[in-house]
Amino acid sequence: MTVAPAQLANAVRALSMDAVQAANSGHPGMPMGMADVATTLFTHYLRHDPTDPKWADRDRFVLSAGHGSMLIYSLLHLTGYASPTLDDIRRFRQLGSPCAGHPENFEIPGVEATTGPLGSGFATAVGMAIAERHLNATYGDDLVDHRTWVIAGDGCLMEGINHEAVGLAGHLKLGRLIVLWDDNRITIDGPTSLSTSEDVKGRYDASGWHTVSCDGHDATDVARAIEEALADPRPSLIACRTVIGFGAPNKQGTHSVHGSPLGAEEVAATRQVLQWMNPAFDLPEAVTEAWAHAGQRSAEDRKAWDARLEKSLDKGEFTRRMAGELPADFSLDGYIAGLLAEPKKVATRVASQMALEAINVALPETIGGSADLTPSNNTNTKGLKPLDGSDYAGRYVHYGIREFGMGCAMNGLALHGGVIPYGGTFLVFSDYARPAIRLSALQEARVVYVMTHDSIGLGEDGPTHQPVEHVMSLRLIPNLDVMRPCDTIETAECWELALKNDRGPSLLALSRQNLPQVRAEGGNLSARGGYRLRAATAGRKVAIVATGSEVEIALAVADKLEAEGIGADVVSLPSWSRFDAQDRAYRAEVLPGDVLKVSIEAGTTIGWERYVGIDGLRFGLDGFGASAPAPDLYKHFGLTADQIAPQIIAALSN
Amino acid sequence: MTVAPAQLANAVRALSMDAVQAANSGHPGMPMGMADVATTLFTHYLRHDPTDPKWADRDRFVLSAGHGSMLIYSLLHLTGYASPTLDDIRRFRQLGSPCAGHPENFEIPGVEATTGPLGSGFATAVGMAIAERHLNATYGDDLVDHRTWVIAGDGCLMEGINHEAVGLAGHLKLGRLIVLWDDNRITIDGPTSLSTSEDVKGRYDASGWHTVSCDGHDATDVARAIEEALADPRPSLIACRTVIGFGAPNKQGTHSVHGSPLGAEEVAATRQVLQWMNPAFDLPEAVTEAWAHAGQRSAEDRKAWDARLEKSLDKGEFTRRMAGELPADFSLDGYIAGLLAEPKKVATRVASQMALEAINVALPETIGGSADLTPSNNTNTKGLKPLDGSDYAGRYVHYGIREFGMGCAMNGLALHGGVIPYGGTFLVFSDYARPAIRLSALQEARVVYVMTHDSIGLGEDGPTHQPVEHVMSLRLIPNLDVMRPCDTIETAECWELALKNDRGPSLLALSRQNLPQVRAEGGNLSARGGYRLRAATAGRKVAIVATGSEVEIALAVADKLEAEGIGADVVSLPSWSRFDAQDRAYRAEVLPGDVLKVSIEAGTTIGWERYVGIDGLRFGLDGFGASAPAPDLYKHFGLTADQIAPQIIAALSN
Repeated sequence: MTVAPAQLANAVRALSMDAVQAANSGHPGMPMGMADVATTLFTHYLRHDPTDPKWADRDRFVLSAGHGSMLIYSLLHLTGYASPTLDDIRRFRQLGSPCAGHPENFEIPGVEATTGPLGSGFATAVGMAIAERHLNATYGDDLVDHRTWVIAGDGCLMEGINHEAVGLAGHLKLGRLIVLWDDNRITIDGPTSLSTSEDVKGRYDASGWHTVSCDGHDATDVARAIEEALADPRPSLIACRTVIGFGAPNKQGTHSVHGSPLGAEEVAATRQVLQWMNPAFDLPEAVTEAWAHAGQRSAEDRKAWDARLEKSLDKGEFTRRMAGELPADFSLDGYIAGLLAEPKKVATRVASQMALEAINVALPETIGGSADLTPSNNTNTKGLKPLDGSDYAGRYVHYGIREFGMGCAMNGLALHGGVIPYGGTFLVFSDYARPAIRLSALQEARVVYVMTHDSIGLGEDGPTHQPVEHVMSLRLIPNLDVMRPCDTIETAECWELALKNDRGPSLLALSRQNLPQVRAEGGNLSARGGYRLRAATAGRKVAIVATGSEVEIALAVADKLEAEGIGADVVSLPSWSRFDAQDRAYRAEVLPGDVLKVSIEAGTTIGWERYVGIDGLRFGLDGFGASAPAPDLYKHFGLTADQIAPQIIAALSN
Repeated sequence: MTVAPAQLANAVRALSMDAVQAANSGHPGMPMGMADVATTLFTHYLRHDPTDPKWADRDRFVLSAGHGSMLIYSLLHLTGYASPTLDDIRRFRQLGSPCAGHPENFEIPGVEATTGPLGSGFATAVGMAIAERHLNATYGDDLVDHRTWVIAGDGCLMEGINHEAVGLAGHLKLGRLIVLWDDNRITIDGPTSLSTSEDVKGRYDASGWHTVSCDGHDATDVARAIEEALADPRPSLIACRTVIGFGAPNKQGTHSVHGSPLGAEEVAATRQVLQWMNPAFDLPEAVTEAWAHAGQRSAEDRKAWDARLEKSLDKGEFTRRMAGELPADFSLDGYIAGLLAEPKKVATRVASQMALEAINVALPETIGGSADLTPSNNTNTKGLKPLDGSDYAGRYVHYGIREFGMGCAMNGLALHGGVIPYGGTFLVFSDYARPAIRLSALQEARVVYVMTHDSIGLGEDGPTHQPVEHVMSLRLIPNLDVMRPCDTIETAECWELALKNDRGPSLLALSRQNLPQVRAEGGNLSARGGYRLRAATAGRKVAIVATGSEVEIALAVADKLEAEGIGADVVSLPSWSRFDAQDRAYRAEVLPGDVLKVSIEAGTTIGWERYVGIDGLRFGLDGFGASAPAPDLYKHFGLTADQIAPQIIAALSN
């Protein structure tokens, strides 16, 4: 018995409206509006195998309009994924259910990306599409040959990030990316005409996309549009004209159906309209069977692919890379040994590039890039070719002046797997990328942010370019390892830690200005987050804690104190999160309770009470910077050994 | 004697390359490339009077490509502004010179906006253009009838924010906004073709803009394009085809001229090419005279305008509003008295709306809005009409799903003057707007950010929507007053403080969930940032500090402690920055040294050591939230009185 497409779609509608109703919270409008489009995609086009959610060559599907989470939960459940179960769906938006308010990749294997912050899913999909083309160029059609699909809403398209994603995808000619736009002309405030007059397709045309429209409630017309998109070599935007909340007779087509339960009465009325008489969460067997059958459409493809992988000479390396494992012998010990033998005084951004020269040779999976600051971020290395529309085998992406887009693309690269992305901009512009950085952390994506020019030490560019609050504010993002190394050795150590952290992003805050190499031993001391760099020689009275470019100053302060017979430890604290993860004994050993503690960091002093206490001294700057040569600024803001040492001496004599 | 336009432009080129050379730092390429275009604008079109930089009806000019700061410094100096002086320019990028690396509105009156972070100046100009049309609709052509001009670079156009700005300007039909795009096809990484393939004009066309191209080195052609833009009712983009670093024979047209001094040799060679033989900072008298003459082009216009203002019935009100002064009788005391008489248990987002009902009646200068979350942010009030292309007299902007664009537009509204903008989104999406918020603070712009759904208290939407690090990370931005009120009274107090702060932005973090009214007295206690909300009745052993929705919990904890005979103060701390500005005695009185201090805030605990010390207890959450009803989440994360009180008792008995 065949089941009509509309009936398959109604299963999605019923699950969605019933789950939202049960939770008394959620967004029924989008899943009900896009049910027909999504059903066409999942029953005819998406190449996936619910029995093997991590099949490397599966199509990627990203629900960029993440508030419509019941759409993807319904689709995954109906096509036969083990998660979510019907019970999970019943417990939509309840503690412990993987069916969270917005889809979370760390809860459900079939969810490729955590979405909800509008526009970011779309931009993440661009990264997945880049990864696909790159791995295809590396391993060939036999192993990598899939598509990336996106369902996006008006919000995804209106956000600034969309411009960056569309520009990047068009420039890179990512023809295997297909976006299904839920063109329902409704936003939370009301009709889209309240806030936009854009010819959306015209904008996409201008960026080298293929565009086509369809009736989002006519499965045949949706299929026609998808076929046209498949045939076109450009990335595609399919404008699916839909009615939000389709089926809810009194609310559909209005913003009232966007983010609230329909209400028991409207749910009942919708059942009448859809002729869907089963009770909540009870699906007709014919419908579930038809869905399950559709879910197995690509099972043979997957088996054939498995067989090809078995026979492939690349099996070992491809499998290693897709598993996110580094080569067993990967280490920077040799490079670090060279530095110890021959110390270098360079900016840590240069030290980062030196480390990358070794890393990019050792790890073929790295994909570098910069948001148009390559010569400043020092993110490129010898022999890396550009990754672009003419050569996807390249490993360096000129992301353009698109920090947020770069961050999202890197998330997509990391989530796709098989590659490890890193990318650079100025630290102050981490603000532009901040929503992407947060999503790297939430999604546990191995992304390395290379953020240079990390303080007033950048000098003349002035306060618009001088991060003051940024290092500290980034430390507040859960699961983001913020590292501010002080020299060549720590920089290499931090890079090693970043690459080995496969459960989250790392951010390197690097100096513009040259810094002396202060470390004389190896052994990745940065791994513990903080450590005693130099012990007091006179009786210890002070512990000076610093990071990055201020470690040099801390050492000079200690010199002055020691010259006065005041014993002073110097502690380098490149990573707060790693230090906080150490046991109490270690932390107390590094920062003893019985000495005056002093922090020096060329940024906000808020937060440093954590290590130096209320009674400690905190040197930094709590206002904006200024435009002048860096040495003048350090003096101006009181961050020199000459200015700091006397204040410590005074505090000790109080 | 007339001076050729090219010679006038060469004065800009010479000053720019010489200042950069003297500073040994800066960006000569853009000023040299855009000198001809800017000269045409400043000598023929820009309506301004250097003797009266704050003339209310002047045209606004924003150098969005702020790295080309020597362009605006040259133009202001040459046209006769008192600042910068030639001496200031000689000391470009040195400590104490107003000629900072990037233009700063707080240094030089003729600089309308602080720019440098790419794309933000353009988006700020959109806000200025909105202000102009709104004030024009309010006060008529006699008082307000000017244009907004922008010079933007490729970076400004490539950033995501540009899409938001262009969309908003097109939708609002801001025909008096004219953007001169420095189409030099060079970015820092190299040719723009490395990272973009966009048909820029096509994109602008799609958003309802007028577009035209010109030869940026042909003054006649530039003028033709500007005339066309002036004649068109839509906002205009003029693509000015230029050569970056025009005149530098060996470097022009390449990225090497973008951000580094030309070098003495190339400076000398450029002098030959331009036939500009005067030494550095020495300008031919004929040229300076011609420039000064051009600077006085609109002096008569300005005088006529002064005369019209004198005669206008609106003089008092218009002058008050442009001066940024509130009506002398403005106060929320009456509204607060009503609350004290009849307490209300509502969400602080609702309390904010209640306050706004009073504010928007009392202050005709407020312009409200939301990034498409009006019903959630509660930012609209009775009787506010939409401000849109059909009615600029409206006072509510549907900004669309454009948080960053909204922030920049609000900066532009505030910088233009005559209006006080406020706008809403979810607090978690402050990340999207963060670069704009930072610029509000740096520019000392009176912008009020209404950020609702300020914690896990929003419940089911889950971690993508739950701010954890946001309140704290916003507190780190200098000159931003972050306020997290706990009830209706504090919310009104914070609104009053925000409106009265004319030297910077304020951000209100507001709850989704209902909160009891805990205050029983008026007197704006929030003005001191923090205060003892309830004093211990038993002997004081504990001080519990909380903000916003956790003040209710702190009170419940105190109840439990007092029931055990443990005296517990409760301190409400809505504004850290205001509290930190109090004298030591007040702070020590509120947070005494001799008691156990405890913080409760449903966000990161990093930073709270500032008030509770290393030995205090800090309740919050340092990881991401989860999706569930709010009460379940508060229990799950240990943020209930039942869970907190025993831990305090245990700590006291240690």
